[in-house]
Amino acid sequence: MPALHERARILDDEHAGTDLRGRFRLPAGVVYLDGNSLGALPAGVAETVADVVHRQWGSRLIESWNESDWWGAPTRVGDRIGRLVGAAEGQVVCTDSTSVNLYKSVVAAARMRPGRRVVITDPASFPTDLYVTEAAARDAGLTVERVSPADAAARAAELGADLALASYSSVDYRTGELWDLPALTRAVHDVGALVCWDLCHSAGVLEVDLDAHDVDLAVGCGYKYLNGGPGAPAFLYVARRHQDAFDNPIAGWNGHATPFAMAPDYVPAPGISRGRVGTPPLLSMLALEAALSAYDGESVADLRARSLSLTGFFLECVDAMLPGTEVVTPREPERRGSQVSLRHPDAYAVVQALIARGVVGDFREPDIVRLGFAPMYLTHGDVLRAAEHLHAVVEDREHEDPRFAARSTVT
Amino acid sequence: MPALHERARILDDEHAGTDLRGRFRLPAGVVYLDGNSLGALPAGVAETVADVVHRQWGSRLIESWNESDWWGAPTRVGDRIGRLVGAAEGQVVCTDSTSVNLYKSVVAAARMRPGRRVVITDPASFPTDLYVTEAAARDAGLTVERVSPADAAARAAELGADLALASYSSVDYRTGELWDLPALTRAVHDVGALVCWDLCHSAGVLEVDLDAHDVDLAVGCGYKYLNGGPGAPAFLYVARRHQDAFDNPIAGWNGHATPFAMAPDYVPAPGISRGRVGTPPLLSMLALEAALSAYDGESVADLRARSLSLTGFFLECVDAMLPGTEVVTPREPERRGSQVSLRHPDAYAVVQALIARGVVGDFREPDIVRLGFAPMYLTHGDVLRAAEHLHAVVEDREHEDPRFAARSTVT
Repeated sequence: MPALHERARILDDEHAGTDLRGRFRLPAGVVYLDGNSLGALPAGVAETVADVVHRQWGSRLIESWNESDWWGAPTRVGDRIGRLVGAAEGQVVCTDSTSVNLYKSVVAAARMRPGRRVVITDPASFPTDLYVTEAAARDAGLTVERVSPADAAARAAELGADLALASYSSVDYRTGELWDLPALTRAVHDVGALVCWDLCHSAGVLEVDLDAHDVDLAVGCGYKYLNGGPGAPAFLYVARRHQDAFDNPIAGWNGHATPFAMAPDYVPAPGISRGRVGTPPLLSMLALEAALSAYDGESVADLRARSLSLTGFFLECVDAMLPGTEVVTPREPERRGSQVSLRHPDAYAVVQALIARGVVGDFREPDIVRLGFAPMYLTHGDVLRAAEHLHAVVEDREHEDPRFAARSTVT
Repeated sequence: MPALHERARILDDEHAGTDLRGRFRLPAGVVYLDGNSLGALPAGVAETVADVVHRQWGSRLIESWNESDWWGAPTRVGDRIGRLVGAAEGQVVCTDSTSVNLYKSVVAAARMRPGRRVVITDPASFPTDLYVTEAAARDAGLTVERVSPADAAARAAELGADLALASYSSVDYRTGELWDLPALTRAVHDVGALVCWDLCHSAGVLEVDLDAHDVDLAVGCGYKYLNGGPGAPAFLYVARRHQDAFDNPIAGWNGHATPFAMAPDYVPAPGISRGRVGTPPLLSMLALEAALSAYDGESVADLRARSLSLTGFFLECVDAMLPGTEVVTPREPERRGSQVSLRHPDAYAVVQALIARGVVGDFREPDIVRLGFAPMYLTHGDVLRAAEHLHAVVEDREHEDPRFAARSTVT
């Protein structure tokens, strides 16, 4: 379709200012649409990690705790993530995994709202959010109601003084739907409850503006759009006004006010440091810190504009080349994260056939072809190429080839 | 003292079979006696980490979850640690930090012993053990009694059916005293309670034999004698007989029976995998895996013999060169971990003066010079050199130099 090729060129010209492919080390010949599962390798990360291993660890050994300020990494990296999610300094700490941070948040929120007995969360949430919210709430003596984000504001109003916490993801991991964080936050505050937002699928690709929207608590991972590497440590946001009341249930020594005094009793650190627990995995954390340099000088607003252009153009391509394909992701830009999910009865095999063609997306149960559009390292040309391959797979029924049917352990 | 030099040579000859310095990349001119805080860099780790970053992450991207079995790393690395602590396969998982694992263990233990109301722990424990045990027990409705390991068996007998859990460190982090794990475990079992051992200062340097002694639960870190690098992930041991009952309070998706089914409800994985929580920090975890190769073909019993020879020889040197020095660590080999702690009123400054001379140990509040003897990369010659430098510092009152007085943030 020559018109689409021309359009891709025009859009890439328009967005040339946010073409940051040069800041990444991408494999040749691949259109990587899985940056919402594992972000690509940013330039400079390998060099930083080699320095951490050889010099900081190997040569300077224990001295690096001071000399390279390993001790300060969790809050230093946290502040850097904070800039991407609209959090002023001193409110984000890089620590543990998203699951562990969510656990802390749910338990701490329950303690901040004593006497309230309900937590609401999204039935379609990423599983760990459901599991952890459920387990933490149960142990804190609360019950969990599963309420779609679309109905959550109304349910919050009904629950009133019974509601302790609304625990939601900003973007649905399967459908890519972007929920109305400001409105739900307001509705929850109207009844005196707290919100905790999971930003795994929004940090770094859209404006979250935690401070501006008076968010209470938030969590998110470091390895998707933040490109921190496999299993990169996660982050925890606690709004400054709640920090004194934030009672971290996992009272580890890294969150102590004076950790090296080796005092016999726990006294939480002032500020966001009380969100820390044990000694952090520094190779992974310092890789994440280096990865965040890819964002230097860029505004999330500009990246969001590029992301919407990429996903919007992909929808155009699908409509033109694959009419009738069921698009699960909302078409309205303001309701769309940075991904496009398509429904297909053979979604798993379609994804495998795409991967064989060098277009890497992923499958999500039960029938979702999930394609993530990391704005920094994708072009409209890539988007068109992905659509062309998808068209070829579906038209030729390539996904019916038996070699694409076998499920691997991790999908 | 020529006699000590001769003796160092003889001992190094005797123990030549366990001289594994060649398996480490140590800085020149340093005697590193802080391997009980941050283990040295093993050979091969830098190469593995570079491969993980460049090839597994950078080139193969998401595919590495299957291709390089990232998913299996926690149990694969766990089994490898298990071999060093006497645990048969399927009982150790590498995950989270020691603090987080201790939290899971205390909460899970309380649930395995309903109706029992007391946890005992060591008042001199490493702070995080006190803080986490206290917080987790309190939240589970139990009270904590602080009882010295020396008195713990007697107290367990008194508490009888009130005792739920004894949470102790195998080696005291300050004094280096090795406690009687088999005897305390038996005493606790005699009243139907559980034990959780913290192996941070014993894993890799002495025979722990978890299975042989019927230990119930254990935790430990990856960055001391296991040499996994700064903040390397920790481990959790749950004896097979307890795994079905082990109810991980932090019910994250990595511990689910079918994580990629994205099921709406939590069903814990069979076996030790239920100790997992979120996505692990793979750069740090795979560095630890590579580091464990330093143990290939070596027995912990042989390393223990070398360790006792090193610490024993250091005591000889101190007695000969610095008579009157207060040795805090027990002199009986069977009561000694892999360190020697000395008491000195200016301990902090003494440690700094030693570091300036290339002998790296650490200070522990309030007056402890703590010297760790990682058996794989230290020789008796190193031990003698350390003692000579200590003698020079103390004799010349070098520690009174004002430049050694200023405390850094992390000591």
